[in-house]
Amino acid sequence: MRISELARRAGVPVGTVKYYLREGLLPGGEPTAPTQAQYGEEHVARLRLIRSLGGVGGLSISQTRGVLAAVDDPTTSVHDTLGAAHKALSAPLLGDQLDLTRARAHLERWGWHVQEHTPALILLAEALDALDSAGFDAPDTLLDRYADAAKEVAEADVAEVPTSSPSEAVRFVVIGTLLLEPVLLALRRLAQEDASSRRFGGDLLLAEEAPPT
Amino acid sequence: MRISELARRAGVPVGTVKYYLREGLLPGGEPTAPTQAQYGEEHVARLRLIRSLGGVGGLSISQTRGVLAAVDDPTTSVHDTLGAAHKALSAPLLGDQLDLTRARAHLERWGWHVQEHTPALILLAEALDALDSAGFDAPDTLLDRYADAAKEVAEADVAEVPTSSPSEAVRFVVIGTLLLEPVLLALRRLAQEDASSRRFGGDLLLAEEAPPT
Repeated sequence: MRISELARRAGVPVGTVKYYLREGLLPGGEPTAPTQAQYGEEHVARLRLIRSLGGVGGLSISQTRGVLAAVDDPTTSVHDTLGAAHKALSAPLLGDQLDLTRARAHLERWGWHVQEHTPALILLAEALDALDSAGFDAPDTLLDRYADAAKEVAEADVAEVPTSSPSEAVRFVVIGTLLLEPVLLALRRLAQEDASSRRFGGDLLLAEEAPPT
Repeated sequence: MRISELARRAGVPVGTVKYYLREGLLPGGEPTAPTQAQYGEEHVARLRLIRSLGGVGGLSISQTRGVLAAVDDPTTSVHDTLGAAHKALSAPLLGDQLDLTRARAHLERWGWHVQEHTPALILLAEALDALDSAGFDAPDTLLDRYADAAKEVAEADVAEVPTSSPSEAVRFVVIGTLLLEPVLLALRRLAQEDASSRRFGGDLLLAEEAPPT
């Protein structure tokens, strides 16, 4: 297909397709004339992927480049690529200035094994510090419930990783890590609303939902 | 205390404190002279809260204003204010162009009750669409595990909401909704690494962690 058809299929403007081509995020098509090229289904899939990462994923072009590099460069170990994918997905971290002691103590309590300076450990330490700064007391019992829930989804995530081909595995890890995060957060808010209506406002909500008679 | 002491205590520059005063995010102090005022502990707490929302929370000034409005304006029902807080925390949504049918069908399957156009339902529909666009097949069994986990943390969240005063309840909901999200996401990534090391790379990880002999 030509570039105009490619753009239409992926739902992005032609100018955007040319921009991704220039930036090297999208590989070039098969040249058919000095100013024309043919594109295939793999280009449509790649464009949709780029759009998803920048859209709901909220990644910058340079972060998108990092994720695509992980997708394109499968190493032999799926576990290593999960680490690479997490790193590409992490904002620049200020780990040097952070005290990771408390975050590590929680992980030890839960019996979780991770690398010593893994990016998510820094994310956790930052998030715990932010709770402190806001004067929000999150008791260990609450964090334990969060850890149980996180373990439940993570076990499901990892069980779903396809082992048929390394590139499929990497693609699953990168996309799954990134695009399932908004799913989890949306579900938490919906479940909060459901739980809150049961604890605080059941009657009100039921009254609103009752069909008119 | 004077403004310089207030800034030091909250860990922000004096210029930033003046900016928040001008923007009305921080209430003025008690005037002691034409160009001087005294501030109290409540100003320190408020400043720390603003800094947390803008920092890890990643909120803009106008989003911060929305959250603070929810904190400052407790209505009689905790359940209503949870809805207001979720709304203030949601980015502008494109609900009109979205098909919410699939998201609603999942909620019905789980027996969750939420308002018809609640912001998180739109977030869920957007997130599911993004998975489709990226060509990522998330089976119902995986979403069910996510729903179970989300319900677990949400029940814990709602059980922790203090009922001593409406303003404390609102503050808990707003801060908890926002600042526990990065905790949950960090924990998911850590649990993924732990699960992945068990499924794919246990030996490698153990070798790296073994103390030198």
